[in-house]
Amino acid sequence: MAELKYEITEKIATLSTNAKGWSLELNKVSWNEREPKFDLRTWDADHTKMGKGITFNEAEARELFTGLGKFLEQ
Amino acid sequence: MAELKYEITEKIATLSTNAKGWSLELNKVSWNEREPKFDLRTWDADHTKMGKGITFNEAEARELFTGLGKFLEQ
Repeated sequence: MAELKYEITEKIATLSTNAKGWSLELNKVSWNEREPKFDLRTWDADHTKMGKGITFNEAEARELFTGLGKFLEQ
Repeated sequence: MAELKYEITEKIATLSTNAKGWSLELNKVSWNEREPKFDLRTWDADHTKMGKGITFNEAEARELFTGLGKFLEQ
């Protein structure tokens, strides 16, 4: 299986950390040396293991921010 | 394989839709009849197929909103 290259280029927010030390984080991540994208997923403490997550671009990030803001204000 | 039950209880935001009609969406989803959680993932047009995504609770949603807001304001 081809090796998955990733680099956390910017740490934006840690949403939570569980008892096992895994954190749900919003970062910017470059996958396989491509342009960094927003990335929401869980990581172990030293960021060598990762869980399922999702990547999105800046336009999607702005839509997420707007939609989430409206919902949380209700 | 056990059947995965899910129900989109609230549609919050569609972040984008691609040429194949798949959308990246923020919803509240009840998985296997449990308490609905925030859910960020891709769906096909009639929401019968889904892609990888992530679920999070309200406290995490608020941290996401705060962190994303600070980053986007830079």
